[in-house]
Amino acid sequence: MIKVGIVGGTGYTGVELLRLLAQHPDVSVETITSRSEAGVKVCDMYPNLRGHYDRLAFSEPDARALGALDAVFFATPHGVAHALAGELLDNGTRVIDLSADFRLRDATEWSRWYDQAHGAPALLGEAVYGLPEMHREKIKNARLIAVPGCYPTAVQLGFLPLLEAGLVDASQLIADCKSGVTGAGRGAKVPSLLAEASESFKAYGASGHRHLPEIRQGLNDMHDTPVGLTFVPHLAPMIRGIHATLYARLDAKAGDLQALFENRYANEPFVDVMPAGSHPETRSVKGNNTCRLAVHRPEGSDTVVVLSVIDNLVKGASGQAIQNLNLMFGFDEKAGLNAPALMP
Amino acid sequence: MIKVGIVGGTGYTGVELLRLLAQHPDVSVETITSRSEAGVKVCDMYPNLRGHYDRLAFSEPDARALGALDAVFFATPHGVAHALAGELLDNGTRVIDLSADFRLRDATEWSRWYDQAHGAPALLGEAVYGLPEMHREKIKNARLIAVPGCYPTAVQLGFLPLLEAGLVDASQLIADCKSGVTGAGRGAKVPSLLAEASESFKAYGASGHRHLPEIRQGLNDMHDTPVGLTFVPHLAPMIRGIHATLYARLDAKAGDLQALFENRYANEPFVDVMPAGSHPETRSVKGNNTCRLAVHRPEGSDTVVVLSVIDNLVKGASGQAIQNLNLMFGFDEKAGLNAPALMP
Amino acid sequence: MIKVGIVGGTGYTGVELLRLLAQHPDVSVETITSRSEAGVKVCDMYPNLRGHYDRLAFSEPDARALGALDAVFFATPHGVAHALAGELLDNGTRVIDLSADFRLRDATEWSRWYDQAHGAPALLGEAVYGLPEMHREKIKNARLIAVPGCYPTAVQLGFLPLLEAGLVDASQLIADCKSGVTGAGRGAKVPSLLAEASESFKAYGASGHRHLPEIRQGLNDMHDTPVGLTFVPHLAPMIRGIHATLYARLDAKAGDLQALFENRYANEPFVDVMPAGSHPETRSVKGNNTCRLAVHRPEGSDTVVVLSVIDNLVKGASGQAIQNLNLMFGFDEKAGLNAPALMP
Amino acid sequence: MIKVGIVGGTGYTGVELLRLLAQHPDVSVETITSRSEAGVKVCDMYPNLRGHYDRLAFSEPDARALGALDAVFFATPHGVAHALAGELLDNGTRVIDLSADFRLRDATEWSRWYDQAHGAPALLGEAVYGLPEMHREKIKNARLIAVPGCYPTAVQLGFLPLLEAGLVDASQLIADCKSGVTGAGRGAKVPSLLAEASESFKAYGASGHRHLPEIRQGLNDMHDTPVGLTFVPHLAPMIRGIHATLYARLDAKAGDLQALFENRYANEPFVDVMPAGSHPETRSVKGNNTCRLAVHRPEGSDTVVVLSVIDNLVKGASGQAIQNLNLMFGFDEKAGLNAPALMP
Repeated sequence: MIKVGIVGGTGYTGVELLRLLAQHPDVSVETITSRSEAGVKVCDMYPNLRGHYDRLAFSEPDARALGALDAVFFATPHGVAHALAGELLDNGTRVIDLSADFRLRDATEWSRWYDQAHGAPALLGEAVYGLPEMHREKIKNARLIAVPGCYPTAVQLGFLPLLEAGLVDASQLIADCKSGVTGAGRGAKVPSLLAEASESFKAYGASGHRHLPEIRQGLNDMHDTPVGLTFVPHLAPMIRGIHATLYARLDAKAGDLQALFENRYANEPFVDVMPAGSHPETRSVKGNNTCRLAVHRPEGSDTVVVLSVIDNLVKGASGQAIQNLNLMFGFDEKAGLNAPALMP
Repeated sequence: MIKVGIVGGTGYTGVELLRLLAQHPDVSVETITSRSEAGVKVCDMYPNLRGHYDRLAFSEPDARALGALDAVFFATPHGVAHALAGELLDNGTRVIDLSADFRLRDATEWSRWYDQAHGAPALLGEAVYGLPEMHREKIKNARLIAVPGCYPTAVQLGFLPLLEAGLVDASQLIADCKSGVTGAGRGAKVPSLLAEASESFKAYGASGHRHLPEIRQGLNDMHDTPVGLTFVPHLAPMIRGIHATLYARLDAKAGDLQALFENRYANEPFVDVMPAGSHPETRSVKGNNTCRLAVHRPEGSDTVVVLSVIDNLVKGASGQAIQNLNLMFGFDEKAGLNAPALMP
Repeated sequence: MIKVGIVGGTGYTGVELLRLLAQHPDVSVETITSRSEAGVKVCDMYPNLRGHYDRLAFSEPDARALGALDAVFFATPHGVAHALAGELLDNGTRVIDLSADFRLRDATEWSRWYDQAHGAPALLGEAVYGLPEMHREKIKNARLIAVPGCYPTAVQLGFLPLLEAGLVDASQLIADCKSGVTGAGRGAKVPSLLAEASESFKAYGASGHRHLPEIRQGLNDMHDTPVGLTFVPHLAPMIRGIHATLYARLDAKAGDLQALFENRYANEPFVDVMPAGSHPETRSVKGNNTCRLAVHRPEGSDTVVVLSVIDNLVKGASGQAIQNLNLMFGFDEKAGLNAPALMP
Repeated sequence: MIKVGIVGGTGYTGVELLRLLAQHPDVSVETITSRSEAGVKVCDMYPNLRGHYDRLAFSEPDARALGALDAVFFATPHGVAHALAGELLDNGTRVIDLSADFRLRDATEWSRWYDQAHGAPALLGEAVYGLPEMHREKIKNARLIAVPGCYPTAVQLGFLPLLEAGLVDASQLIADCKSGVTGAGRGAKVPSLLAEASESFKAYGASGHRHLPEIRQGLNDMHDTPVGLTFVPHLAPMIRGIHATLYARLDAKAGDLQALFENRYANEPFVDVMPAGSHPETRSVKGNNTCRLAVHRPEGSDTVVVLSVIDNLVKGASGQAIQNLNLMFGFDEKAGLNAPALMP
């Protein structure tokens, strides 16, 4: 039984960590911090946790207390993990950061997209990008994990087999992505109100979104020439779920794409390649850590269409964070992540 | 490890049994029947179950095969369990019926509400009404369980402490109930279409609903004079959840209602009395077997208002069925029912 | 063509006034004020108005400019109309206040519920409560209208025939009310987020809500002995709509309730009594000024159940405000309010 | 005042015609047919129409009665208009067909996608494709109109300025489209249930959809070399609305795209080009006949992204049908189509 803490636990990824860890046989949540809610019991804020964490209350973040734990999750806005991660690592505490702080390897690029200086460039060298399907072995030995973003997870897992096999024109990739509103966090903003966001659909950030450089970096790792990507995120009127629809132009040598995907992911516990002709639904992964994929070639043309769905709060955040933890500590990779999706 | 079967598994209560039992340490689902879908794999119909029941397929119901199991759940329309239950019981198989077939003790009353003759009146004597908060000891020794309906569960648990203590005018109870659309089942009916049921709210069955006699029978068991109940169900634009708002006139001798409720349910694993002043949300029990209650006395008047929420598919159906199974087989009452609700 | 202004136009009742008045043949909107958005064009904030009010921009409120108009609507938080109404009336401008400022006749009662002193008690004497079905003649001659609240409209129209006829026990009325989230306004609050409010249902204010004294005052106007009312509002996961389910105990002398309701509302352009046995849906009035009613007597008992639906932003706010304006200026009562509800 | 009829009025496009025509100053709906609901009053099926069409009832289709009208709308499944259109045209009745029957100019192509022989190939020569932004003059003189499909309308209006100007590589167009569930009609099918379709997002028909040949034909009319199109439709959890996200590779000579779009649509009453940087929301056209567009060039790359939203039941069906009627009969093109969208 290892002891873990959560920094910044009031948001959706924080409470999702609690929900999932309540079922984890090897992990005890000792601490959860929040400056704004210090003193409040977690189950007063999240009544679904009544009966599970009845004594756990939000506390002020305290580096010393956190440094006594085996691992600490950061479920914070960007910038916070920069400030604390180094001290924790020095104490031997592993850090699993769900924010964007260590996702980009290039501190300058990070500064450009986040409008502030990078607060811990010295740690970038050892931060491991926590996409197990790409970096499982590195994760096992990592001290500091950058958990991938939600869109980046869905997009990378969809393009991975095609790029690794060199079967598409990597200079012209398109990722048309749709997300439920929890992707925007728990902040009280007018556009996220039910009265504004339900019964409607819209794109946003069509001219540039912070997940773009992260996706591009990840796709470049899969391919020997630089990728060109158009990424348009959309807001769908639902709580959870990401659906990425991916388009690429196929090389003449492209063969059986269904077999390509099935083989690439044959041993992946959390990637499910559906039968040919399928259309995965986001609800099939609601509350669950699976990425479900289908690959199409409309009318036998030279365009491949990949459909990729995840739960943005699970495989796109907290579930993937726990999958990383399991790898780092030698637990069963599926520990705490076994429950089927909630459907209907 | 006991072996169980599910008769009529294509509906929402059937798939919910599968979802929950996938996490049960002591139960193996051997058989699931469906006349219409025989031969279809359950995970082709419910992709959330991919990876969990990969070899399980719907089969034609076969009394002999079912009779070899330890227990059989009926997740069928009314009438089906009547025909099969006797034979299974004779084979020593316990029967847990989620339909209405054995809920009313009076076969004539049953016939009146269901427009057909009762098919197994001889079994009514031994059928136990599976509301553990009322009948836990009987359930432990039962062979045949009638799992309560969804509205009846929410309403009975809300009125129970008041009626047992004799603190309200039982002749004038009001239950204003709201349900998500899964309460209407998975049948393809126009009023259940998203385009018809979302962004709207309506009552139905205001002049008489089949759950009324079941609720009345249950409330009468709690009180020494006959209860009078007005029950109005409503359809809320959501997938899961029941919210019962209960009204009763208090006796002069009514004292600390909060303490009354807390004491009555102190040892109940699946009833959660919230702090005074609370308003339980249905989402706090989404996917979970808890009934969450709050009790109010507006402006200190002589009217008590009880707020009661459940997930209609869990405590209102499949979860309660498993709770009964656990009691019947001596398992931990919470086995398979531990996961927190999915929120947000 | 009269000239009107709107004070506080950025909220949902403000934009709804604009939407409806765009179709009004006799009204020109000259001014719309907002301190926070002064200078912003209304169609930049509400793109559905592009092509309708292309030159209209929010401006700082200016009593002199407003005083030059024929009528001014207040779509403001409580307290604002108190400060401005008097000066406008002195200039001969009629005031139609959609806030709570002039709804309660008793300034002390108002202070108690709104936690501040009443700012214009001298105007209470001439303020007319703008429920046309009760006060049509007074409205025609009024200078200052208090537009009823949304819940109060649905509840009063449902109880009106019963109370006027003296057919129910007025000491024990129950109003179980459900509202879409626009009832909470356009403020950015966590509980109104789609991720919090959708797929859930809850009561709120069960121990006391600001609409209670307004409803009670209105019901008392219909009955010769004081009414006793239990009022529990609920939040339904939808944008618009109120469904009031009303319960009362009938007198022995109660006869044909269907006829009672039909006769009472025979000449009302915006109250629709549905055929016996009906269950009105809130979507049947989406965007429309109708209150749709049905009356039930479950199992022939002595309890009457009235179902009453309105669109909270139309008959519950902006549409009723325009209905009042039409009466005050001698226009067709339905002017600007003719369009059928949007369904599906 | 012209007299019109609607054949097949029970579906969503039929009731939407009624809703919109209730506000049309020059049109009287004399007849609405339905084999399945003959004898039922339209306002019993659609209570939002109570007070508007109180005497109108569904009737058996009768070619003679229809032939006495000025115009007949077909809101029927494919195949029905084939059988009746010729006789009506012979009687001098104009035909506005909302189905797919006359959209494809090639009867063989039609047969291939609709799995049956074309029933009226002789009429294909005079059928006019009712997209006013392309064919306004022909529409004015047409006797038989094929109203464009919902996806085809959104996609064609988005690509039109680019293709006409020859600024994109027409061989590699991508249309990623999202639709609300009314696009699937009012049929009672399990996948359209609220419990199945809400809180989820999925693609469908990724390998081929019936709207594809229609879109391709329309785009080919705009461009001198054959277009290549990948079209992937998706189901969004909402009632109304289509959002098309369009991708194309720009020629080197592409200049100011914002000006291109604004100029092309400067005189179009129902196409609204939003300011640069905008992201149109489907709710901004809910119930309204506008197509709202925005054009983006992410990071200044050579890929153009066009965002196009319509209400599938209005500009995507019934509203566009009325726009065609207005042109055919010389009415104001906006008659009956003036009301702003319902927002929120």
